[in-house]
Amino acid sequence: MDPSASGLAQRLAEADQSHLLHFWNQLSPAEQAELTLDLQGMNFQEINGFFKNAMETSSNSKHEKMDARMEPVPREVLGSVTRDRESLKDWELTGLHCISQSKVAVLLLAGGQGTRLGVSYPKGMYDVGLPSHKTLFQIQAERILKLQQLAEQKHKIKCCIPWYIMTSGRTMESTKDFFSRHNYFGLDKNNIVFFQQGMLPAMDYKGKIILESKGKLSMAPDGNGGLYRALGNQGIMDDMERRGVESIHVYCVDNILVKVADPAFIGFCVQKGADCGAKVVEKTNPTEAVGVVCKVDGRYQVVEYSEITLATAEKRSPDGRLMFNAGNVANHFFSFSFLRDVVKKYEPQLQHHVAQKKIPHVDAEGQLIKPDKPNGIKMEKFVFDIFQFAKAFVVYEVLREDEFSPLKNADSQEGKDTPTTARHALMSLHHRWVLNAGGHFIDENGRRVPAIPRDGAAGSVTDDGNRNLKDGTDLPIKCEISPMVSYGGEGLEELVKGREFHPTLMIDENGVHELVKNGV
Amino acid sequence: MDPSASGLAQRLAEADQSHLLHFWNQLSPAEQAELTLDLQGMNFQEINGFFKNAMETSSNSKHEKMDARMEPVPREVLGSVTRDRESLKDWELTGLHCISQSKVAVLLLAGGQGTRLGVSYPKGMYDVGLPSHKTLFQIQAERILKLQQLAEQKHKIKCCIPWYIMTSGRTMESTKDFFSRHNYFGLDKNNIVFFQQGMLPAMDYKGKIILESKGKLSMAPDGNGGLYRALGNQGIMDDMERRGVESIHVYCVDNILVKVADPAFIGFCVQKGADCGAKVVEKTNPTEAVGVVCKVDGRYQVVEYSEITLATAEKRSPDGRLMFNAGNVANHFFSFSFLRDVVKKYEPQLQHHVAQKKIPHVDAEGQLIKPDKPNGIKMEKFVFDIFQFAKAFVVYEVLREDEFSPLKNADSQEGKDTPTTARHALMSLHHRWVLNAGGHFIDENGRRVPAIPRDGAAGSVTDDGNRNLKDGTDLPIKCEISPMVSYGGEGLEELVKGREFHPTLMIDENGVHELVKNGV
Repeated sequence: MDPSASGLAQRLAEADQSHLLHFWNQLSPAEQAELTLDLQGMNFQEINGFFKNAMETSSNSKHEKMDARMEPVPREVLGSVTRDRESLKDWELTGLHCISQSKVAVLLLAGGQGTRLGVSYPKGMYDVGLPSHKTLFQIQAERILKLQQLAEQKHKIKCCIPWYIMTSGRTMESTKDFFSRHNYFGLDKNNIVFFQQGMLPAMDYKGKIILESKGKLSMAPDGNGGLYRALGNQGIMDDMERRGVESIHVYCVDNILVKVADPAFIGFCVQKGADCGAKVVEKTNPTEAVGVVCKVDGRYQVVEYSEITLATAEKRSPDGRLMFNAGNVANHFFSFSFLRDVVKKYEPQLQHHVAQKKIPHVDAEGQLIKPDKPNGIKMEKFVFDIFQFAKAFVVYEVLREDEFSPLKNADSQEGKDTPTTARHALMSLHHRWVLNAGGHFIDENGRRVPAIPRDGAAGSVTDDGNRNLKDGTDLPIKCEISPMVSYGGEGLEELVKGREFHPTLMIDENGVHELVKNGV
Repeated sequence: MDPSASGLAQRLAEADQSHLLHFWNQLSPAEQAELTLDLQGMNFQEINGFFKNAMETSSNSKHEKMDARMEPVPREVLGSVTRDRESLKDWELTGLHCISQSKVAVLLLAGGQGTRLGVSYPKGMYDVGLPSHKTLFQIQAERILKLQQLAEQKHKIKCCIPWYIMTSGRTMESTKDFFSRHNYFGLDKNNIVFFQQGMLPAMDYKGKIILESKGKLSMAPDGNGGLYRALGNQGIMDDMERRGVESIHVYCVDNILVKVADPAFIGFCVQKGADCGAKVVEKTNPTEAVGVVCKVDGRYQVVEYSEITLATAEKRSPDGRLMFNAGNVANHFFSFSFLRDVVKKYEPQLQHHVAQKKIPHVDAEGQLIKPDKPNGIKMEKFVFDIFQFAKAFVVYEVLREDEFSPLKNADSQEGKDTPTTARHALMSLHHRWVLNAGGHFIDENGRRVPAIPRDGAAGSVTDDGNRNLKDGTDLPIKCEISPMVSYGGEGLEELVKGREFHPTLMIDENGVHELVKNGV
């Protein structure tokens, strides 16, 4: 399969990408075949167009300009679990009703690999070390299952929450295999739909596609905003329409606390007639590295922390809160009709963002180079890029400690967003559920553990309280409640009220267990 | 010096502490002399009384009772840097005027040793690794010096801020020596007054004083609330009166961000006619381990995190904030007359708190035992115990990231309140000062560093921004500004406006320096 004979060399020359065949004669026939296959599947004119547009957009965007154009989220489109407590129950009922009608789907963004986490498999397969050793996928699956049950019990009607799972070329097979091996965690496999986001080549600053080896292009997923293109070209919108889906909850795989298909969030968005909604947590420190939902030139978008000046980040409302405090947690609501319009009409209008990266590549002699400075770009779209097209956008503010703890880094790195912080966040939440349902924890000496465990954190002038605790941290109480028992803290009174437990406490389908510590 | 002959044995027997002489015959004459000296200085009846009262108070206090009696701080006694921005300048002017009249003193609580920090010298002597390698004592001294200069410049009058430093038996000599060797960091030594808090013996649960070796009692400082007794018995109140001090700012040594004699805080308290005030930071997470300032039975106090139920900790005001959110940071204002009344009248009424501890001790055979469970108590009073006596109490809320970063733990432990977090907090603050004064930072490629450096923290769905940064964290920008140049961010425009800096940036009395990185 000579590239000249097949017309491939010609296409590459026209796209100014002929260097991709530079090592052709040094490749084995198998390598030649594979490279040919990769190259034949690519639309170089389109890719070159993406590059040109992305670089132009990138160089045109000046940070200083953004600040003057930003407006905060108006109170009238904001729902808040702390400020609108009287409405919460009603929103939840509405959401649960929608679920019972099988009108709610969840859409999981799981195309990334756990590179920063230090693993080579999809993040959803990660076990953060909970007592149960459940993976993120299993936790999310069980929450869906439980929510179906709650809706069925409430409305005496059989229902399902279809689960659309976006993988990438790198994670598709292992993800599907994992679900199959675990028997879909009890869910009906017909209601789980896997699809695949696109890949794009990495390019150098001149627009040349980068070779990661003599016969292989450097490829990366096209960002979580690749979602929209994938939804269209893999028939997912048709599948949703066939099922009668009206509301879609989109989220990222790495948040261990995610309230999948959260009825209160869904209900709030539905009651507000929203076509698009973002769940946020309050940003309280001006220099926290989080993107904020706001209006720019009258349209909603997420402004990344790197795009604003300190003066803007520090602006405050009269109530003392940060003016731009709607911290994005990649947790969104879409109406079906909005999503359909996005896929059909709006997505193609979006430019890719440019991410400068250190991209390993081969030099002219075929030697592998691992650069220590960025040497090229990856092109990505973001899932929130389409907020600007919403006609009825709403924002829903929740508590970080209840709903957001992403898994990003390995435990050996900085202490943020690690398996340890994810595990602690979940156990702390479940500890609070038990306390609020009237249960108590006691230590090895039979004394009640205070509701707020010491964490070595800020503010107490007393180095040690008058309690019997191990040196240093005693956070968190070890406690895990299966989603099959409680989706959001409900239904625990009958199991724990007035009872005292020794950690580790586990509550699952089989009952309430106190795990005896052993040497392991 | 036979203990029987001196009457000591008799006194011990009467106090039921005769076991302290159990090893008498095994001691060398020097050890005997030292033990005798220690014992002769002690008032056993008083100590036994402290023990009895403290244990009674401790066992009577039930957590459940506290919750129903708690009320939040009313808005009318609260001043807030975020919610009362229009008043800030005025408060600051009032405070600066008081300082210019030499009516403001600062009082440093520095009796503790850096045990948890892993050092055997006073915490104030610790170098957290700033570019300047200044110690906490030096940073605080220079802030006092600068504030004197600011007041003098503003009011064209010579003034001083007397600095009262409370040490303990363990830290007195090394502290005084440290100040002397450093020439009092440029302050007039006549305006620095060292005094010493009391010590109390550790006791077992039966009230027996614990021997840490055959001839030595286990002694510990009597808590930061030992302040009041020490103020009285060492003539400090008289010294203050002689100097005409009217307002006193009390703080703990371990907070690297402390605004010593903060004019805005002083001015707020003075304008409000307060006799007692507490600086607080907003508690935003219900389970944060911080004590909160609130009213109990109509009187102000600090309720420790271990004393309240989760339900109370989670209570919210209609504005969505936690109802009990006034996080204590050991940073207080007292009027002179209030402090005098406390020392004379109120302090003796206070009971000691009981802190259960693992206390090394010798057994009946004289073998050293290091217990792995608490085996006894230390008795402490807390500096905030006297809030209840205030007749005009106020609360002043500041931003945590600007004013509070305590140094408690060694870097090897959990990542909270360590030398690293303290150093980062100070450099982050100074970074913000430079940006807000119109300066910029550029990286090694000459590109401007975004105002908000990436910290690997929560919320961004993009793993990497389009910036050229090292892998992982790039927080903070290395930047340090001497207190001799700026007390609170003022006066930097002329030095930095419109300029671009490579970190490490240092600004001190000698000018603006960019430190070149070398291999060190």
